[in-house]
Amino acid sequence: MIGRLNHVAIATSDVAAASAMYRGALGAEVSDPMDLPEHGVRVVFVVLPNTKVELLEPLGENSPIAAFLAKNPAGGLHHVCYEVTDIRAAAARLAEAGARVLGDGNPKIGAHGKPVLFLHPKDMGGVLTELEEV
Amino acid sequence: MIGRLNHVAIATSDVAAASAMYRGALGAEVSDPMDLPEHGVRVVFVVLPNTKVELLEPLGENSPIAAFLAKNPAGGLHHVCYEVTDIRAAAARLAEAGARVLGDGNPKIGAHGKPVLFLHPKDMGGVLTELEEV
Repeated sequence: MIGRLNHVAIATSDVAAASAMYRGALGAEVSDPMDLPEHGVRVVFVVLPNTKVELLEPLGENSPIAAFLAKNPAGGLHHVCYEVTDIRAAAARLAEAGARVLGDGNPKIGAHGKPVLFLHPKDMGGVLTELEEV
Repeated sequence: MIGRLNHVAIATSDVAAASAMYRGALGAEVSDPMDLPEHGVRVVFVVLPNTKVELLEPLGENSPIAAFLAKNPAGGLHHVCYEVTDIRAAAARLAEAGARVLGDGNPKIGAHGKPVLFLHPKDMGGVLTELEEV
């Protein structure tokens, strides 16, 4: 069912410093920061030949990554996102397997403008897992 | 400098259960478990079209993932690995940027039989980061 790894997301309290580190020490191609107020994050993309890394900084009140950074002030690996071709079929298969979808169980429109859902980390070996329809 | 994302590693106390979840709920292609006693892990590969996820279970005494699982008993995202073409050049660039290489600062032969190094998470935004020469 799952296809490509769409991205790995890393939470940071300072996306500018993280960008400088990926550009400098690792010599990576890094995008300009982009604010996504409706998703509560400022995001920078580290562009790799086969996938991307998203550096996320909290933006505004109620950012979905604020609690993670409170627990992990230095930042860290936040979630992974896999691509699926039919997110409703994916949600049905997951429900059957007993994996809980966060929220009301229905896909939402995600930060890339495509339907996404997040799976409960407790059902995914401690890993917050996003599925995105492509 | 960095190229492809070679893999994302997930630590788990039960690679068989994690395999069943990736195969079942996520419908992924999952390899048979492989023991790497010299690296202190049992590993399963989740094969994606563009990269792979490595599920790691501690093997034997002094497993490099034992401390992580003691802190995160449910498992979780453990590290990311980027490919480089010249790991000694990478190590020199990292040293210049002030990023510390774990151990004695020199590349070692990693779990895939290729030269690798690990960067100190404190220098990488809280993310344990591996570089592998390909």
